[in-house]
Amino acid sequence: MIDLSKTEIVANFDFGTAVDAIKDSYIAASNKAVTLPPVGHIEFPQSNGDCHIKAGHIHGQRAFVIKIATGFYNNPKQGLPSSNGMMVAFSAMTGEPLAVLKDEGWLTDMRTGIGGALATRALSRPDAQRVLILGAGLQCLFQAECLENLSPEPLDYVIWGRSMQKAEVAAKQLVGLGLKARSVENLQDAVANAEIIITTTPSTKPLIAADWVRPGTHITAIGADCIGKQELETGLVLKADLAVCDLIGQSLDHGEFQHAQSSGKLSNLVELGQILSETHPGRPAKNAITISDLTGIAPQDIAITGAVLNEFTAKAE
Amino acid sequence: MIDLSKTEIVANFDFGTAVDAIKDSYIAASNKAVTLPPVGHIEFPQSNGDCHIKAGHIHGQRAFVIKIATGFYNNPKQGLPSSNGMMVAFSAMTGEPLAVLKDEGWLTDMRTGIGGALATRALSRPDAQRVLILGAGLQCLFQAECLENLSPEPLDYVIWGRSMQKAEVAAKQLVGLGLKARSVENLQDAVANAEIIITTTPSTKPLIAADWVRPGTHITAIGADCIGKQELETGLVLKADLAVCDLIGQSLDHGEFQHAQSSGKLSNLVELGQILSETHPGRPAKNAITISDLTGIAPQDIAITGAVLNEFTAKAE
Repeated sequence: MIDLSKTEIVANFDFGTAVDAIKDSYIAASNKAVTLPPVGHIEFPQSNGDCHIKAGHIHGQRAFVIKIATGFYNNPKQGLPSSNGMMVAFSAMTGEPLAVLKDEGWLTDMRTGIGGALATRALSRPDAQRVLILGAGLQCLFQAECLENLSPEPLDYVIWGRSMQKAEVAAKQLVGLGLKARSVENLQDAVANAEIIITTTPSTKPLIAADWVRPGTHITAIGADCIGKQELETGLVLKADLAVCDLIGQSLDHGEFQHAQSSGKLSNLVELGQILSETHPGRPAKNAITISDLTGIAPQDIAITGAVLNEFTAKAE
Repeated sequence: MIDLSKTEIVANFDFGTAVDAIKDSYIAASNKAVTLPPVGHIEFPQSNGDCHIKAGHIHGQRAFVIKIATGFYNNPKQGLPSSNGMMVAFSAMTGEPLAVLKDEGWLTDMRTGIGGALATRALSRPDAQRVLILGAGLQCLFQAECLENLSPEPLDYVIWGRSMQKAEVAAKQLVGLGLKARSVENLQDAVANAEIIITTTPSTKPLIAADWVRPGTHITAIGADCIGKQELETGLVLKADLAVCDLIGQSLDHGEFQHAQSSGKLSNLVELGQILSETHPGRPAKNAITISDLTGIAPQDIAITGAVLNEFTAKAE
């Protein structure tokens, strides 16, 4: 049985293998070639924490995966990260345990970054250069790094955060990684100037107004992953020429599209798997506004865990 | 972080600590002092397997637990056990992983044995001596051993199985463990002669008729744990003076009481936690027939995992 720490996982991680696996997993999810039990959820009101259990099997794969992800939001006060967790893989042939990946949440951050980058590349204008990221946390860094890795040319990143200071720190970290990045203060101007917008905040009220966004922009919305969260004005979602999500049920229930859905006017949602498999043509026109809402789905977890396992199994042979 | 193999878990297991913890967990479940997400279930039709994910938190405990249990029913043909799995514990204060117990399903077998023994001792006549166990598999051994450990005097065990040969083997194994045991062939006679009956088969049709059971008998039904399974004639459940289960929702949905429930005549179900906390008086009369149906609940898994963790933490300190 494979038993890996976060350090071992990060040191041996192969980005390209994971990207291919995650791309295939979105396609499998849209083709219903997956078995996914409902997400398990435990709340810990006394310690301001929660735990999500996402599990499933991509049909035909040798492993199935259970992901346990915790978020305890008082942890930073004690000097601990708020997120933690692990991935556990079992054989889909015999039910035997194959691996425990004590990734402390790193694989979730990475699969979220890769999912966002796949959506952004598939739906933005191929010549788009100017990227605005809202939110200056860990996912800002993962989104920028993954997008840069999947882009044929270097892009220009501007970072906006509710704390100007944190936005500066994040921009400097990206510069340290070799990206072209700076922070911005005026969000409306930054939105108007962007060709790609990536939202990664935990906001519960809209940050971007419908009339700020110029034609041809693509928006990847990552932050809204539970009931009540919202980063985009409902009118912006309704105005978009193409609205894509990772899993329709999740997006309407607790993703960015929950608010547009409750307006009763949302129609024609497309899943990212349909775009990535080219079953759907994607961006309808150069000047179209496109939005992808990613709530995060278990097939991404299964895929990235499978990619790590395959790497280690190949090395061991 | 604690990381234990089955061998380490078995070698260091403290039966009394686990019994106390499991008793308390039934009481907590009946008092709703637990958070339990719905059981996750993944099917693998191509390899005749399934996986159940049971998770939860007993309020006030320092750890919460996720149990992953697999059953792959073609495994024995390849010389592998059909059951496998592990328990994973996390801190309910910080969400950090505390332990991975690679018990290969042993803790599930043990908590099932302890649960059965607690129910049998609480509900049978205190002077009952003659125990009949239906089914000659692993759970026959766990039920007998746990019951013997919790009984003030040695009991007499007779084992009935659909394979007479397997019943003989199981009886010999119990004798090897120091118990007084033999196999029996005629089930109806054995039922009529028993004061305690424990059913541990995967039967999907009743094995025990209502009029075979004599007054004063207690029955602990363990086998029925999914839709379609049944070990007791529906008339026997309806005839019982007291019907107890571990969790009412589970028992009516996929336990022994599902069939009596669908007859529309079942009433007054009591939970084992109410008996163990003495909130309910239990056995109503010396000559009453009592039945406990145990489908297996996540609080047992949490409790036995917590007991193992406490043992190891205490030894490490």
